[in-house]
Amino acid sequence: MTMQFLDFGVFVKLRNKIMKSYHSKRIISLTTDFSWLSEGIGIMKGIILEQAPDCQIIDLCHTISSYSTINGSRQFETILYLPVGIHLAIVDPEVGTHRKCLALSVHRGDILLGPDNGILMNAASVLGGIIESYVINTDTFHSTVFDGRDIFAKVAGLLASGNYNLSDIGYKIDPEKLKTSPLNDFLYLDEINNAKIIHINSFGNIVINIKSLQINNVINKFFKIQIENKSVISQVKENFASVPIGTFVITDDGYGRYSIAMNRGSAKEFFNAKIGNNVNIIMVRSI
Amino acid sequence: MTMQFLDFGVFVKLRNKIMKSYHSKRIISLTTDFSWLSEGIGIMKGIILEQAPDCQIIDLCHTISSYSTINGSRQFETILYLPVGIHLAIVDPEVGTHRKCLALSVHRGDILLGPDNGILMNAASVLGGIIESYVINTDTFHSTVFDGRDIFAKVAGLLASGNYNLSDIGYKIDPEKLKTSPLNDFLYLDEINNAKIIHINSFGNIVINIKSLQINNVINKFFKIQIENKSVISQVKENFASVPIGTFVITDDGYGRYSIAMNRGSAKEFFNAKIGNNVNIIMVRSI
Amino acid sequence: MTMQFLDFGVFVKLRNKIMKSYHSKRIISLTTDFSWLSEGIGIMKGIILEQAPDCQIIDLCHTISSYSTINGSRQFETILYLPVGIHLAIVDPEVGTHRKCLALSVHRGDILLGPDNGILMNAASVLGGIIESYVINTDTFHSTVFDGRDIFAKVAGLLASGNYNLSDIGYKIDPEKLKTSPLNDFLYLDEINNAKIIHINSFGNIVINIKSLQINNVINKFFKIQIENKSVISQVKENFASVPIGTFVITDDGYGRYSIAMNRGSAKEFFNAKIGNNVNIIMVRSI
Repeated sequence: MTMQFLDFGVFVKLRNKIMKSYHSKRIISLTTDFSWLSEGIGIMKGIILEQAPDCQIIDLCHTISSYSTINGSRQFETILYLPVGIHLAIVDPEVGTHRKCLALSVHRGDILLGPDNGILMNAASVLGGIIESYVINTDTFHSTVFDGRDIFAKVAGLLASGNYNLSDIGYKIDPEKLKTSPLNDFLYLDEINNAKIIHINSFGNIVINIKSLQINNVINKFFKIQIENKSVISQVKENFASVPIGTFVITDDGYGRYSIAMNRGSAKEFFNAKIGNNVNIIMVRSI
Repeated sequence: MTMQFLDFGVFVKLRNKIMKSYHSKRIISLTTDFSWLSEGIGIMKGIILEQAPDCQIIDLCHTISSYSTINGSRQFETILYLPVGIHLAIVDPEVGTHRKCLALSVHRGDILLGPDNGILMNAASVLGGIIESYVINTDTFHSTVFDGRDIFAKVAGLLASGNYNLSDIGYKIDPEKLKTSPLNDFLYLDEINNAKIIHINSFGNIVINIKSLQINNVINKFFKIQIENKSVISQVKENFASVPIGTFVITDDGYGRYSIAMNRGSAKEFFNAKIGNNVNIIMVRSI
Repeated sequence: MTMQFLDFGVFVKLRNKIMKSYHSKRIISLTTDFSWLSEGIGIMKGIILEQAPDCQIIDLCHTISSYSTINGSRQFETILYLPVGIHLAIVDPEVGTHRKCLALSVHRGDILLGPDNGILMNAASVLGGIIESYVINTDTFHSTVFDGRDIFAKVAGLLASGNYNLSDIGYKIDPEKLKTSPLNDFLYLDEINNAKIIHINSFGNIVINIKSLQINNVINKFFKIQIENKSVISQVKENFASVPIGTFVITDDGYGRYSIAMNRGSAKEFFNAKIGNNVNIIMVRSI
């Protein structure tokens, strides 16, 4: 009986199985504009799990405004809060053309996959910047209409399997040659004439392209906010429950930018706000 | 070769890895009013998996009517059908105020996490009642606007990791001091003047706060149902396919309450029903 | 110390745990018309994971048009792109009646579960055809209104656990006696008077019941498409980015049928298209 146990080959197989399992407990996240109506999300997961059966797949967001790389850039940037992993961003109006398919390694240790339209760049930046950028060799994959499945999910699975490196799936490109981000931020809340709505959440809170790092300098101050042809005067607060129900508030969006919200109401409905709308802001003495 | 094998330290590490893996195959479920538009759901999963990489996360419901603790209470109560695990309910209109964050252990073996607004109480009850209740020590977490991520998901991950106990994350509180449930049920289908709509599903079936445990006593009986300014006469049946297509039926909702449905139609559309609407019921002789 | 190690029983338990874990890394996919509003999806996952804690569950599609077995057949057929597994299709207008609950084994190695209304048949066909078909013995389960939970998810979990075979959960039936598919395809794009809309995706692309295997024979040709009382003339192209923005295109849907799309626009909105609408097609010389 002990002889059966002292079988080194069995031991090695056991160990390898455990180690492989350990390795492939990779996090893969998906950000798309497919909407939850799409079978495409499930199909991409199938392709990934075929290659890497033990990985954990996180749906980060599938309701990016159709073709909006600016909304996609903001949403994808929140992968900062996900564990190190392989992160896909598929907002790809040029699918089927000769736009490049990218795989970027970044300093935090993640790999970012998506089309070369700037959508990966904000996320790459908050994760410490690009180490290496690769153009996926799409000739080795067969895709006509659904690159999310036939290229990006396949590459994600191959990389997560532990059997492939970035250099196996494409060729290096100088990061300077990549398309830049469509999302550019103002750094302070101040008099601003052309801020943009970059996201609207399900409570109707409106996220704008102004960083909130300096929020402590403007807490309790009042600003006039104009979106399209409507305007309100609103106070900056640490959170939206700090103002009476039905009142507007400017606060952090939870990810480092300002959000225009109405406590238990919908700022989106009030302004009939849409992603891409201009936002004009002026500081005012008081309400 | 056998000597390499007879390495007790390696064996212990192997065993620990397996045991830990076994331990952390925990079920964690999420119930929120974030809607599927939100990146917040994915972010919470990332925070959990960072601490407990092998747990299985189940999205129970993310479409609780915004801020509705009565709808949330009904939906969260269905965790009765989930395996023993750590269950989060984040419907939290008072986020950012001094309302407490709770962690409850219940007799079935689950841990329930959520704000102290009553939303955990129906679920706690169907799971055998509270054993211990803890107030999460929020000073040790840094949250301003998104407690779901910064407090509840973090605590869920820590508990699921197997490295923390309830006593590590907060202090005990007498369960009698917790907010009570906003969802109170009638126990029999009878003449009732102020029942409430507590849930509406995607087929338009309307769930009301009347328990269906005694459904066998009223099978085939007729009731007049009035919601807002419309009314119908409907029969109690075991399921909605027991009446002709287009006909109303009162039946079990699948979770122990009565549901007002139209076979292959939408009771919601007929009544223009909303969560919280009053429902008046009278038994009638026949149709 | 070595004696502790040379414990054959411990070794066997370790091995069994690993093997069982290996076995139960099964893929289970879910296709329903519950919509993402439903707690039912999460509940089904709980029931499955109770029996098979390590399986990977993929949501393929939960937005099948309510009760539409033709839309369900098309969506479920895309499991061709998922790994071998146990696949559930719950579009079940006759739930609660005496329609049969089926479990089919197919030549690729998958098991398909769903009601006997034809919804499994297209998928069975693309997976190589049925090997054996079983009628689930519903007397051994207790279901009144939610067979997805009480029968189909339970059976999926039992089969995925590795402890049950098809013959344990029902009795054999001649596949010839099963309901046939509601989705019948035309094999070529040609003059067709009664094609049908079988799916519409979130970009508004319209999928019709005409196979695109022969697309190379009609690339660049023009067709007049009529849906309800509107018509357009459109060219066949390999993908939708091959035509100018705002222009109609006929292309592969990514799964082997033709799709009528507008580059960065919504064909659905243009035609006010609905699943089941008739589509008339005539080849034309040129635009």
